[in-house]
This record gives sequence, C-alpha cells and structure tokens, in this order.
Amino acid sequence: MPEKAADQFHFADQVVRRTRAFGHPLCAGLDPFLDRIPRLFHSGSMRPNDPMTAAAVQRFLIAFLDRAAGKVVAVKPQIAMFERLGWPGMQALSEVVDHAHRLDLPVLLDAKRGDIGSTAENYAAAYLDADSPIAVDAITLNAYLGRDTLAPFLMRAKAEGKALFVLLKTSNPGSADVQNLAVDGRPLFLHLADKLNQLDADLSGPQTGWSNLGVVVGATHLDDAIAARAALPNALFLIPGYGAQGGSSDDAVVTFVNRGHGPEGGLINSSRGLLFPDAGGQAANAAAWEAAIDAALEQASDDLGQALARKR
Amino acid sequence: MPEKAADQFHFADQVVRRTRAFGHPLCAGLDPFLDRIPRLFHSGSMRPNDPMTAAAVQRFLIAFLDRAAGKVVAVKPQIAMFERLGWPGMQALSEVVDHAHRLDLPVLLDAKRGDIGSTAENYAAAYLDADSPIAVDAITLNAYLGRDTLAPFLMRAKAEGKALFVLLKTSNPGSADVQNLAVDGRPLFLHLADKLNQLDADLSGPQTGWSNLGVVVGATHLDDAIAARAALPNALFLIPGYGAQGGSSDDAVVTFVNRGHGPEGGLINSSRGLLFPDAGGQAANAAAWEAAIDAALEQASDDLGQALARKR
Repeated sequence: MPEKAADQFHFADQVVRRTRAFGHPLCAGLDPFLDRIPRLFHSGSMRPNDPMTAAAVQRFLIAFLDRAAGKVVAVKPQIAMFERLGWPGMQALSEVVDHAHRLDLPVLLDAKRGDIGSTAENYAAAYLDADSPIAVDAITLNAYLGRDTLAPFLMRAKAEGKALFVLLKTSNPGSADVQNLAVDGRPLFLHLADKLNQLDADLSGPQTGWSNLGVVVGATHLDDAIAARAALPNALFLIPGYGAQGGSSDDAVVTFVNRGHGPEGGLINSSRGLLFPDAGGQAANAAAWEAAIDAALEQASDDLGQALARKR
Repeated sequence: MPEKAADQFHFADQVVRRTRAFGHPLCAGLDPFLDRIPRLFHSGSMRPNDPMTAAAVQRFLIAFLDRAAGKVVAVKPQIAMFERLGWPGMQALSEVVDHAHRLDLPVLLDAKRGDIGSTAENYAAAYLDADSPIAVDAITLNAYLGRDTLAPFLMRAKAEGKALFVLLKTSNPGSADVQNLAVDGRPLFLHLADKLNQLDADLSGPQTGWSNLGVVVGATHLDDAIAARAALPNALFLIPGYGAQGGSSDDAVVTFVNRGHGPEGGLINSSRGLLFPDAGGQAANAAAWEAAIDAALEQASDDLGQALARKR
C-alpha cells in the first residue's frame, strides 16, 4: 500500500493543527439571518425571493470572512439559509465557499444530508469532489438510513481527505426522542457510535491521529457528550450549542483530550455570536462594523482559549 | 373553530381522489440520471458542471411531465440530482416544479431534510410556503433529530394542507442498522411511528380521512411495512422500491386498505422505469421517445391497477 503523501489534504489534521496554532477550536457558523444583516450590506427589498437579497448575503458573508481569516479554525455555512433564497442563494453559497478557500479557511458544509444508493452518490458528488459546483472540505450527514448510505461519502473521505460529521446527539430539546431510546440498556446514539467505529478503518490523520469520520455532539447534554467521546476516542467532534444556544465554553470543551499538545479533538461552532454582535447591527459604517466583528471574534476565541487552559 | 373550506388544498385528499379516479397510485420519480437522458435532449457537454446540462435536464423533464399529466397521481423530484448541478440545477428544479403545477400535477419534493430550530424553519420556508422560491406540495423529512424539529413543517401542513413524509423504514439493505434496533422488544421505527401518531392531531383530509402526516416505507421489507400500517392507520405511505429497486406490484400495495373505494392509502413511486424505458433511450426522434414514455406509463399504471384489483 503506498504511503500517503505528507502534504495531502486531511481535514481533521488541518483543523487540529490550526487549533494548536491559534490556541482555540473556534468554528464560525455562517447562518445569514436576513433580519439581522446590518443595513450597510442591504440591497433590494431584502425579502427572500428577491434575487438582490442573495447578493447582499454574499457581500455580508465575504466581508465577514475577510475578518475571520487566520482567526477561526474553520467556517460552517448552513445550507438551509441559502436554499431559502432559491437558486440565487445557491450561487451566493458557491461564491462564499470559493472566497473562504482563497483565504485558506477550511469549509464544513452543514447540510445534514442522508439518502440511499445513487441519491447519496449524487449528494457526495455535489459537495465533496474537486469539480463539484459547491466544493467543500467536510459535510454533516444523517445516518438514520443506515451505514450503507455513508459509502459514497466515505469514498471521498478516503481518497480526498474530506471529513464527514455524522449526527450523533444533537443540542435541541427533542433530541432524546430517537437518539436516547434505550437499546439493550444503552441510548441509541451509543449504538450508532459503535457502528461508526466499525467503519473507521483508515480515516485517521497521519499528522495528528484525529479521524475524518467525525460526529455532531451538542454542548447541551454533557453526560451524553462524555459517553460519546468514550465510544469514539479518535473522532473529531463538531460541537454546536456554544454561545447563543446556551452552552458555556467549559461545557463546549468537555470532550476535548490532551495528547501532548493541549486539549483538542473538536470544532466548537458559534454562529449568531460572531456574525451578529449587538455593536455590529448598530454600526454606522464599515469601519465600525469591522471593529464589532473583530471584537466578537476575539471575545469568543479568548473565552474558548481560557476554557482549554482550565482543562490542561 | 371555523370549518375548513371544502375546496382548500389538502395533499392526501388530492392524491387519494386521483388514485380513485385513475385506478392506480403511481407516482413518477423525477431522478434525471445524466448518463441516461436521450441524445434528443442533450445540450452542451452534458457534464454536471456545465450550465447547459441543467437546461437539458429541464427540457427532458418538462417533456416527460407533458406525457405524465393526467396519468400519474403525483410527481417526486429528487433534489440531490438537481443539487449535483449547482445553482443552475436548482433553477431547473424551480422551472420543473412550476411546469408540473401548470399541468395540475401534485409535487412531492424528495429532500429528506431534518434540522433544528431556526434551520428547520428555513427549510420549511424554502419549500412549503406560497412564496417559496421552489414551492412544492409535500416534502420528505428525516426525524432522527426529534419531534420538535418537525414543528415548522407541521405548521405548514396545518395551515396550507401541505404533506410531510417522515422516513420510517427505508428500502436499502442497511436500513436495519438504526431503524430496526430493538427498543423494549420492538423495532425502533415502530416507536418513531408511535411518536408521530401523537402529533397526528388534525391533519386528516376532510374528504378521504387520509392524513398529511405521511411516512416513507419501502416495498422491500413486507413484515415491517405491515407493522407500520398497523401503527399508523391513517398515514399516507410513500412507497419507493417498486420497479427498478426490485419490489413487485403486489408487494408495493401490501399496506393499502379498502374503506369502500377500493384499496388506497399510498403513493407508489417509480423513477427509472418511467423516465428511462429501454425504448426511450434508443428513440431516434421525439415521436418515438413520446411513444416509449407513454408505453412505460401505461405498463406501470396497469401493473399497479391489477395489483389493486387482486387486493379487493
């Protein structure tokens, strides 16, 4: 078997290296709520089905990415917000992803896709190939349909170093409805974790050991998060729920482990807290808005960095 | 509480009325596999990232819809196939949906979306509102994240008569991985069915009694399908797996029940069998292709109609 080239792209390696370099695991969620975008960026009516709205969203997010470059370990566009704008929204998403790549920002698409056979193949080809119309580095997936439905995504993970984040235990109030049903005395999501473990053949990064077969584990159910880490020791965790959704920084890093480089092993996402700080909405001009975004990025990075330091 | 207007749109009522009128429950899946589209419709390179390809897909599907109008109870575009083409694909999907509506064909979008809070709200607003950029009549959903994530879709079902088809038991080989895990001695999908039942307040159609809270149940696991029907007596079933996926017409109607108008209660989907009959791929001109499509539609309708007759 040929050795992997040392410089081949590997998402988990890249974000963990960035976590070590930056001193925090902050991921910026790109969730462009129309009613919060500052007037500075408006064009047209700002109604969802006005094509000018997608142009405003694109301008706003590109300005944000210019502030976030070199300061966050990754960015996570939420595709629902772009689908809401129809095809002009998908065009804007494509431009936003390209701009993030120009700034060396890894892009994790939050799409929560899941389907069977040839349909799964089409989703994978839509987002994870070099010539995909929207070509990202990682994607979130839903495995309710079974392990076979992950196959086309795993193929891209193995061949191209792309990462998959499978929904395991989410941060919403109703997440227990299915995820915590008791199967042989253990919650369902831990059985899913075991099944994912059986797939985790050779997706570990050559540089850090963290795997491109990641999972989504909310920061709002701590015992469940700790149990998920025990079940998946090498999986990179995508952790929503920090900030606006109510989780503290100490809660957010509860699954991080120290293997000699400080606590690591996850991406902690903040969306509204970074995109829409109060001072940003009130900014009278571009310079004031930029200062508000810079302050929000610094505050969240410091908060998470301090939580990592307390965990050492 | 005001009575519902008798002429208000109700998806389940509409498709069941059409089933009674047509004598079969055939739904045409719109899965435009690029390598099967007849040369007749080609434009550009027919590669996925050539914008001319989306135009060819649109032309092909609109020609198909013109043949299917008045002959199938609904159409089901598979959104993954359009996402694969980037934003031009989404634009084509929007045109295809509009054309179906001009032909009075109900449109069920196969999107299998599922997400929390404001993200779920954006998916619902993207597809189920009157002013959505791609405005359909029904959508498939994934409920792994819990019942609360269905709320924005249920709201549209109640207010606008739209239908939801929640993934229950799918037709793929790996579907048992999660869906059949044993919870208190019963497979998980039946527990999910019970939870859905608790939501099924007033989504039943005033004309037929069939509910707009539907489920997806494959035609390949018959015992599971029968158990799902027992758990959800009024749910409209979306049944994939007939035809190309291997299920027979008798298997496909196994969950249908006779309440005085002949067996009913489901939509049976065929995609490749209708869109890509062998004779269609070889057609030398438009008239020959139209004849091939007409024959495929007639063959599937007759096959399902006869299965219903055997079940009376």
